[in-house]
Amino acid sequence: MTTREKLRGIYTPNIVPLDPNGDIHECELRRYVDWLIERGVHGLYPNGSTGEFLRFTAEERRRVIEIMADQTAGRVPILAGAAEANTRETIKACEYYHSLGVRAVAIVAPFYYRLSPSGVYAYFREIARNSPIDITLYNIPMFASPIDVPTVARLAEECDRVVAIKDSSGDLPHMMRMIAAVGPLRPDFSFMTGWDAALMPMLLIGCDGGTNATSGVVPEITRKLYDLTLSERLDEARALQYRLLKLFDTMIYSSEFPEGFRAALRLRGFATGVGRQPQAENQQLAIERLSNELQCLLAAEGFTEEPIGGCPAGHGVDADQVARIVKQVVDELKKRGMTAR
Amino acid sequence: MTTREKLRGIYTPNIVPLDPNGDIHECELRRYVDWLIERGVHGLYPNGSTGEFLRFTAEERRRVIEIMADQTAGRVPILAGAAEANTRETIKACEYYHSLGVRAVAIVAPFYYRLSPSGVYAYFREIARNSPIDITLYNIPMFASPIDVPTVARLAEECDRVVAIKDSSGDLPHMMRMIAAVGPLRPDFSFMTGWDAALMPMLLIGCDGGTNATSGVVPEITRKLYDLTLSERLDEARALQYRLLKLFDTMIYSSEFPEGFRAALRLRGFATGVGRQPQAENQQLAIERLSNELQCLLAAEGFTEEPIGGCPAGHGVDADQVARIVKQVVDELKKRGMTAR
Amino acid sequence: MTTREKLRGIYTPNIVPLDPNGDIHECELRRYVDWLIERGVHGLYPNGSTGEFLRFTAEERRRVIEIMADQTAGRVPILAGAAEANTRETIKACEYYHSLGVRAVAIVAPFYYRLSPSGVYAYFREIARNSPIDITLYNIPMFASPIDVPTVARLAEECDRVVAIKDSSGDLPHMMRMIAAVGPLRPDFSFMTGWDAALMPMLLIGCDGGTNATSGVVPEITRKLYDLTLSERLDEARALQYRLLKLFDTMIYSSEFPEGFRAALRLRGFATGVGRQPQAENQQLAIERLSNELQCLLAAEGFTEEPIGGCPAGHGVDADQVARIVKQVVDELKKRGMTAR
Amino acid sequence: MTTREKLRGIYTPNIVPLDPNGDIHECELRRYVDWLIERGVHGLYPNGSTGEFLRFTAEERRRVIEIMADQTAGRVPILAGAAEANTRETIKACEYYHSLGVRAVAIVAPFYYRLSPSGVYAYFREIARNSPIDITLYNIPMFASPIDVPTVARLAEECDRVVAIKDSSGDLPHMMRMIAAVGPLRPDFSFMTGWDAALMPMLLIGCDGGTNATSGVVPEITRKLYDLTLSERLDEARALQYRLLKLFDTMIYSSEFPEGFRAALRLRGFATGVGRQPQAENQQLAIERLSNELQCLLAAEGFTEEPIGGCPAGHGVDADQVARIVKQVVDELKKRGMTAR
Repeated sequence: MTTREKLRGIYTPNIVPLDPNGDIHECELRRYVDWLIERGVHGLYPNGSTGEFLRFTAEERRRVIEIMADQTAGRVPILAGAAEANTRETIKACEYYHSLGVRAVAIVAPFYYRLSPSGVYAYFREIARNSPIDITLYNIPMFASPIDVPTVARLAEECDRVVAIKDSSGDLPHMMRMIAAVGPLRPDFSFMTGWDAALMPMLLIGCDGGTNATSGVVPEITRKLYDLTLSERLDEARALQYRLLKLFDTMIYSSEFPEGFRAALRLRGFATGVGRQPQAENQQLAIERLSNELQCLLAAEGFTEEPIGGCPAGHGVDADQVARIVKQVVDELKKRGMTAR
Repeated sequence: MTTREKLRGIYTPNIVPLDPNGDIHECELRRYVDWLIERGVHGLYPNGSTGEFLRFTAEERRRVIEIMADQTAGRVPILAGAAEANTRETIKACEYYHSLGVRAVAIVAPFYYRLSPSGVYAYFREIARNSPIDITLYNIPMFASPIDVPTVARLAEECDRVVAIKDSSGDLPHMMRMIAAVGPLRPDFSFMTGWDAALMPMLLIGCDGGTNATSGVVPEITRKLYDLTLSERLDEARALQYRLLKLFDTMIYSSEFPEGFRAALRLRGFATGVGRQPQAENQQLAIERLSNELQCLLAAEGFTEEPIGGCPAGHGVDADQVARIVKQVVDELKKRGMTAR
Repeated sequence: MTTREKLRGIYTPNIVPLDPNGDIHECELRRYVDWLIERGVHGLYPNGSTGEFLRFTAEERRRVIEIMADQTAGRVPILAGAAEANTRETIKACEYYHSLGVRAVAIVAPFYYRLSPSGVYAYFREIARNSPIDITLYNIPMFASPIDVPTVARLAEECDRVVAIKDSSGDLPHMMRMIAAVGPLRPDFSFMTGWDAALMPMLLIGCDGGTNATSGVVPEITRKLYDLTLSERLDEARALQYRLLKLFDTMIYSSEFPEGFRAALRLRGFATGVGRQPQAENQQLAIERLSNELQCLLAAEGFTEEPIGGCPAGHGVDADQVARIVKQVVDELKKRGMTAR
Repeated sequence: MTTREKLRGIYTPNIVPLDPNGDIHECELRRYVDWLIERGVHGLYPNGSTGEFLRFTAEERRRVIEIMADQTAGRVPILAGAAEANTRETIKACEYYHSLGVRAVAIVAPFYYRLSPSGVYAYFREIARNSPIDITLYNIPMFASPIDVPTVARLAEECDRVVAIKDSSGDLPHMMRMIAAVGPLRPDFSFMTGWDAALMPMLLIGCDGGTNATSGVVPEITRKLYDLTLSERLDEARALQYRLLKLFDTMIYSSEFPEGFRAALRLRGFATGVGRQPQAENQQLAIERLSNELQCLLAAEGFTEEPIGGCPAGHGVDADQVARIVKQVVDELKKRGMTAR
């Protein structure tokens, strides 16, 4: 292995702003890149699930990376989603993104067809053998073939090019099993969680960072949660994790993914445009309601004004109340735990 | 609605032969088209799941349709898979395939992201409003967002362009529910089953035909099963359905889909080439074993020689034995049923 | 094997009427038994899922069989659900039910814990080795550990006492796979379907009968569907299957199982009592609405009066319309199929 | 609410030792109770999933509580599994266990039938309204109807008798959602995790304790992990969590649950007897292999001798190596995190 820097910290899986014609909104995308970097994210992760890689053409996917690599200009590392129609096309994308200077690529396991572990292994091995750039495995079992622990371990052992896994299952023991199986073989391997709802505990059991969609909307909070957790300021981290959970759940469960994130980013001042997946009338109404709710949540965090008509009392306050109560629980347990031993 | 012919009969979801470079093997594809038509399939269905549409580039998918439309030259109708990265690209594909003279397109529900019924509805409505060509909905819930019965009914009612559903769930009551919900609204609507294991019963409860992968390998059998069933020669049809089930199960469950179909087609004399999804060593061995087993099954049907080393006694005979026993059961039930009333 | 009669025909999984105290309503249960037998069901199947075996105590389960065996007095065979807390208790139940003269017992696969195929095998083998009475395996994968095809085949081969399977998966190819695997080994083995929505096609591919919950509510229809199918009066059978599907779906999907069946049985004139699973207010309202809908469906079949306020026009007519349309489709296919060959 | 003590700490869901006749081994059960209490578990939880409540008769379940309540003699609180065939029987069990002086009962959501949230709510409400003793809801969605967050909140709000939830889903964000929804309404409500693989992170986000099957086998470790976590000795806690994960996975995934725990307890010196679920020959061999592996793991922890033939080098060492590596990762992140801000 080389002296390449290990993947660490918060990488933002960014949405791609679209212009009124439905094309990539280049200047808004560039402005978004700057905004994210200024707010402290450690890296960028374009062409992920949040970035709707699948809803862009092969040419557009390349264009996204070109723009973002150019705009980033080396300020932070880029992890570029590089999955294409087949291994040959994917390898070409790896070569191209390498030439653009990105840090690594991320490749989702084959989807649509559900492959066996052997098929998943063969797929990644073929790419790893031919890629000039480091590869992050991307496990998102709700959307794609699962990458199981023995497959991660085998790829980590056989393929130097495979340097990390991004796991969006949100399954904490699964992450621990991967760390236990791969860590001793490859100390340089990175474990990134893609499930914002569990960022704090994932970091506490040994993750190197996260590719968290919330960091594309409230990078200040996701970054702060990361810092507080690493500083072991547990009470503050826990309180923030509960607030992030509320935001995350609101964005992810109230509409078709990633429309909630698009709506929230609009509230942060970006012309995100209309998504490429058509929305039925009831869905459009749901997004409007969601947008109002998000505005209250973001206002409670100080990121926006309250919507016209105001917010229901206690909005954004719950989380603090929860935090206080949880702290009491933990304090009480500590006190008793101490004396009991 | 116009006097357009309703979709009926057996449509073959064809594999695309690849040349030694891994590119579309045009002359073999043309030969395959002729071979299928000569063996009686009622139509062709390129760019389906069996055709691995997802593992080809957008340009290659167009090329497949060009070649097949040219070679078919109107002898049988073509149902062209037209799903692309987003509705805009899909509509362009619809326009192009329309210009090539295909009968209709088939569009799979959005995959990767699992959409709600509203999202599925909005997606197909957007395409249907802009397509110059008839559309077949393609429901394959194990791979893509499910298209539920109310959504099919709503699209059938609102969109003249939507003329059929291809359902690969294999769920017979589900098919009956669709027929019950949509049939009265749209007598011109076609119901096609994509699950070969249940072709006979699906036809008996009212399906118009099937898009059956076995018909790409043993078109003689799939077609004959269709004919026997429609003639209500139930004993013969049942016996053949059991034999087709054995073949189908062997091809579909012994390896990563659609490698079993590729291996079987090779045994029928086509240079199918190596699939685009890499196979691990254990998978390659499994395909070799499968190929041997398939050869015995095909030999029992009279389509190939037995493999060197011969076949285990009774290979291909089981199914007939099963058929005899089932016939006895049915005969006995009939006899008793008669007297009991 | 002996000359014991093979299990065949329609077995009714009966609900247990409860008195105002929530106890077994013996006289109503006896009246129900007579009513079912008079309407032509071939056998009775107490202590099944419809019979809520799990919500009765071990003593009550025995009492149900005592009453029903006594009342039946040999007019039709009884298949008695005999699953108890463990194999020792289950074997005791087998012995007791044997002493009461029932034809066979039915034993559901272990539930709550999801057992592996080996565990399911070992469980049934232990019981089969010690039971004085024939055993029907009961596969209902949505509620209990699945019994896979190799396990059925192995038990059928090794254990004479295992004489049948009741399969409620509704998966038609799965049933065919079982018939293909077990039929040749054990011509005396019975295959019973527990999924009313597919009764006609299940019989057409070789099932010996069904344990169908609809036969507890509309025994006339379920029995007639069985007879029409065996007589190969396919058009009539198909039309009836569509009507039964509508009834079945209404009873099974509009409330917590088996409340829909209980409500429908009440409409047929039985004091079914209040179920043992408490219902929330919204569920009670849903059952009232369902009851009204069921009354319309039953009135359309001539079994009850219409509810006060009448039924929406066309209620119960849909199914006939569907049948006519499906018949046209099939006729058209036949006509073309004939000429095409 | 009264001054009743909140449920806190590690409760052991104990296995029931069986004598050579397969009956409850009373004296061994009594010895086991003492052994557990001496090793520091905070409470006992008989008649849980680990205790195979379902494989005992109603009378045996009562007998288990009688013995354990008598033997415990108030030294630690008892949480008694009280689910019976229906609410009437369950309420009777609540009354009886109350008379025996147990602290609370735990009641699993209805199983076999999968109930809707309304059904789950109505079930627990009916019991809570009639129980003389505090109730813990028991959510184990892999085995029983899920208890969703709104249902927990509604029951917590309406029913004083409902004082806790035991959640065995292992889903950390789900636990956080419950704490966020219920905590503010009921500060006295306890959240107990039943998924040992995530005990440390569950405690860190605010759980009050755990009902952990590992504590029935290695109470020393489970208790120590609890104490280390509450003391925020994170590095030590994390290292121990990884070791516990290895033990847990070995016991839970290498055989039919809870056979791995039975085998391990035998290694700790208890005559656990043969389980009531019969095991096939291949399963018995698997348990022997598992037993050997467990002995090595327990030997590495100092609880047993190594098996004859010794243990593979590195057995039990992995976990420490993992811990060291994870600590390096965390330390590195901390160092960088600090400087980065």
